[in-house]
Amino acid sequence: MALVVQKYGGSSVADAAGIKRVAQRIVATRKAGNDVVVIVSAMGDTTDELLDLAQQVSPLPPGRELDMLLTAGERISMALLAMAIANLGHEARSFTGSQAGVITDSSHGKARIIDVTPGRIQEAVRAGQIAIVAGFQGVSQDTKDITTLGRGGSDTTAVALAAALAADVCEIYTDVDGIFTADPRIVAAARQIPRISYEEAMEMAACGAKILHLRCVEYARRFELPIHVRSSFSSREGTWVVSDPNTEGSEMEQPIISGVAHDRSEAKITVVGVPDKVGEAAAIFKTLAAAEINIDMIVQNISAAATGRTDISFTLPSADSTVAVTALKRIQEQIGFEKILFDDQIGKVSLVGAGMRSHPGVTAKFFGALADAGVNIEMISTSEIRISVIVGQDEVDAAVTAAHRAFDLDADQVEAVVYGGTGR
Amino acid sequence: MALVVQKYGGSSVADAAGIKRVAQRIVATRKAGNDVVVIVSAMGDTTDELLDLAQQVSPLPPGRELDMLLTAGERISMALLAMAIANLGHEARSFTGSQAGVITDSSHGKARIIDVTPGRIQEAVRAGQIAIVAGFQGVSQDTKDITTLGRGGSDTTAVALAAALAADVCEIYTDVDGIFTADPRIVAAARQIPRISYEEAMEMAACGAKILHLRCVEYARRFELPIHVRSSFSSREGTWVVSDPNTEGSEMEQPIISGVAHDRSEAKITVVGVPDKVGEAAAIFKTLAAAEINIDMIVQNISAAATGRTDISFTLPSADSTVAVTALKRIQEQIGFEKILFDDQIGKVSLVGAGMRSHPGVTAKFFGALADAGVNIEMISTSEIRISVIVGQDEVDAAVTAAHRAFDLDADQVEAVVYGGTGR
Repeated sequence: MALVVQKYGGSSVADAAGIKRVAQRIVATRKAGNDVVVIVSAMGDTTDELLDLAQQVSPLPPGRELDMLLTAGERISMALLAMAIANLGHEARSFTGSQAGVITDSSHGKARIIDVTPGRIQEAVRAGQIAIVAGFQGVSQDTKDITTLGRGGSDTTAVALAAALAADVCEIYTDVDGIFTADPRIVAAARQIPRISYEEAMEMAACGAKILHLRCVEYARRFELPIHVRSSFSSREGTWVVSDPNTEGSEMEQPIISGVAHDRSEAKITVVGVPDKVGEAAAIFKTLAAAEINIDMIVQNISAAATGRTDISFTLPSADSTVAVTALKRIQEQIGFEKILFDDQIGKVSLVGAGMRSHPGVTAKFFGALADAGVNIEMISTSEIRISVIVGQDEVDAAVTAAHRAFDLDADQVEAVVYGGTGR
Repeated sequence: MALVVQKYGGSSVADAAGIKRVAQRIVATRKAGNDVVVIVSAMGDTTDELLDLAQQVSPLPPGRELDMLLTAGERISMALLAMAIANLGHEARSFTGSQAGVITDSSHGKARIIDVTPGRIQEAVRAGQIAIVAGFQGVSQDTKDITTLGRGGSDTTAVALAAALAADVCEIYTDVDGIFTADPRIVAAARQIPRISYEEAMEMAACGAKILHLRCVEYARRFELPIHVRSSFSSREGTWVVSDPNTEGSEMEQPIISGVAHDRSEAKITVVGVPDKVGEAAAIFKTLAAAEINIDMIVQNISAAATGRTDISFTLPSADSTVAVTALKRIQEQIGFEKILFDDQIGKVSLVGAGMRSHPGVTAKFFGALADAGVNIEMISTSEIRISVIVGQDEVDAAVTAAHRAFDLDADQVEAVVYGGTGR
C-alpha cells in the first residue's frame, strides 16, 4: 500500500461542484489501495476577498492578524472537502496547519517551515481515514501564533508533509497538464515534459515558470521526494520531477535544452555615475538588502577612465521597485552617484537544460537566434544549467519562439519532449 | 483599573463599517482606563452562508467538520476587529477559542465548556494589549478537535472567560437597549428594565426572551458575575443582571411581576388513550429523551374510570416535533396508546417575578386578565417565580398585552420599571 500526498489548488476547489469533483478523485485514489493525505488551498477568490475586507478596515494590517484572517480560507475549503468525502462513504478528517504539525518561524506572511511533526496525520492514516490538511499555514515555534507561508505556500506544505510522512509521491494538481517546454500561449508547438530533474525544475521556477514554486522543488530535492505535477481536470499523466529523469531504461543522450522560461514581472534599475571606489557597490546592495528586496541579475560596466565613475544595473520584482528607489535616494548623497534610471518594460527569457554543461556552443546559438529574430539583449546572466537574457517586454514572445525553434523543441522537431514552463 | 469583558454579536460587526464602529467603542473603553477583553461573533450572515456551502456538498455533514467550517466565521471577524483597533493606534491580538483556553467536551455543535485556561489572554492583558477572542468555539479536552458551543454560544464564551479572568463586568452588546418588560413590538408601553436578578433573567430566557441565553445567565449566576446588556448602537445604560437587583440603597418593595415573556417556537403533542399502568408515562418520556428531545411542559389528565386510559400532553420545540412523533410511533404497539395529536399553532405566555413568592393572588389575577381578554388557556405550568400558560398562537399578543396591563407594568403606570424580554 502506497502513501500518496495530493495537493489541490484554489482553482480546483473554486465552488461546491469543484469540491465534489476533487472528493471523487481522492476517493478513487483511496479505492485503488492507497493511503491518502490531501493538502488543499482556499477556494477560488477567497483569499482576495479576505484581503479586500482587511483593506476596508485598515490600510496597513498587522501581519499576525492578516495571517489569522487569511487562514480562515483553507479552514473553509478543507472542512467542505472532508464533508464531501464523507458523503461518498469514506471517512475524512480535516486538520489545520497547526494540528498537522507544520511548525514555522515567526515571519508573518512569509514564514519558513522549520519542523513538521505530523503525529495526528499519521494517527488518522493508521485509522484508515483520509487526512485533509490546510495548505499555506503553520504555527510559529516561539509565539504559537498562526503563520502563513507566503507565495507557493500550499505546494510547500504538500512537499514538506510528504517528506515528513515518507510518502511515495507528492501529486500537485493544477489546471494544466504539467510542465511544458514553453508557455503554450506563446509557442503553439510547445510540448508537455514527461520527466524533469529537480535542478532544472528549480531553474525554471526561478525564471518565471509558475507551475511549481522554487521553495517546493528545493524541499523535494532535499528529501529526494518525487513530485507529479498534473491536471485535476483530466486523468492524464503529468510531469514527474525526480532526481534523474533519464534513469528509466532510456539510453538516449540528455537533450541540451529542456525548456524556455520567461518572466515579465521584473523591472530594471540603473544607478548612474557611481564613484569607482572599493565598497560603493557593497553599500548600494546592503541598503537594498536592508529593505528586504530580492535582487535578481546584476551588471556593472567597466568604469570610464576619464570620469572614474561606473553604472550599476540590476533587476528586481517590479512590485518592489518603489521601495528600492526610495531606499537608494536616501543614500544618493552619501554614495555620490549621479541619478537613478528605472525601466519596468523589460522581460527575462531563460534557456534551461542540464545538457548545456557539456555543450559549449549553446550561448552562441541562443544569441544568434535572438539576433536573427531582431531581438536586442540588454543584460545577460548564466548558471551552470541556465542562460538568461533581459530584453524589451514587447520582444519576449519573439525571443521565446526563436529559442524554442533554435533548440529543436518544437513538437514536430523532436521525438523526446523535454521541458519548460508556462510562464504564467 | 477595571477589567471589562465585552461581547459583540454578529449584527454589530456585520460589515467593515460596523467593525470600525465597534473598534472605536473598544478603544474608548480602553482610554477610559480599563483593561479590555472582547468576545466577537461571526459577521452578519457568515454562519448561514457557510451552512449553505456545507449543504451544497453534503446533506448530512459530520459534526466535527461542520464545527471546523463554522469556526472560520469568528476567525475572520476577530482578525478584522484586531486590525481595525491597530489602525486606531492601540495594540490588539486575536485568539481562537482554543488559543484562549476554552476547553469543552466533544459534543460537536453543542459542546459544553468544562474548563477555561486563559493564560494567553492574561499575558496579552498584562502586556497592555486588547485581547479579541472568538466566541462560540472551543477545543475538546479528549480529542483536541475544534468544537462549537451551539445556541447562545458567544454569550457563554464571554461569561465563562469573564469569570475565569475575574472580570469586573461582562458587557453583552446587542441591537436593542437591554431587557424589556415585554416585547415592545407587542406592547408599545413596554419599558426597559434597569436591574434584574439572575433567577428572573433565567426564567425569562427559558420562556422565550431571546436577549440573553439561559446557559450564559446560569454561568454568570454561579460566579456572581454582573452582566450588563446594552446596545452597540447607543451609549445608554442597558440592563444589569445581578445577584440582588434591589441592593442599591433602594428601600422600595420588590415588584410582584418583573416582566411578561412569550414564545411561539413550541408545539404540543398529545398521546391519547395511554393505558393507566405504572411505567407507561416513563416509557414515553424515556423514548423522547433517547431521541434527545427537550420536553418543556407536561400535563396528564386523571384517567377515565370507565376506560382505564389517560391522555398525556407535552410541549417541545417545534423543530423537534417530527423526530418526536416518529419516535413515539415506533413504541405505539408496545405501549398500546390509541393515537398521537399534534398542534404547532400554540404560544406560551409567562409571567416572571421574584415578588410572586409572597403574593398568593398572582395566578387568579393573571387568569382573570386572560379571561377578560377572551383568551382560552390550554396548559399551565408554574415555578416559584414564574407562571406559564399555553394559548392559541393567534392569542399570544392579546394575552401578553392583558397581563402587562393587569400587573401595572405599562410605562405610564409604574415608577420603577422592572423587567421582561423582547421574545425575539
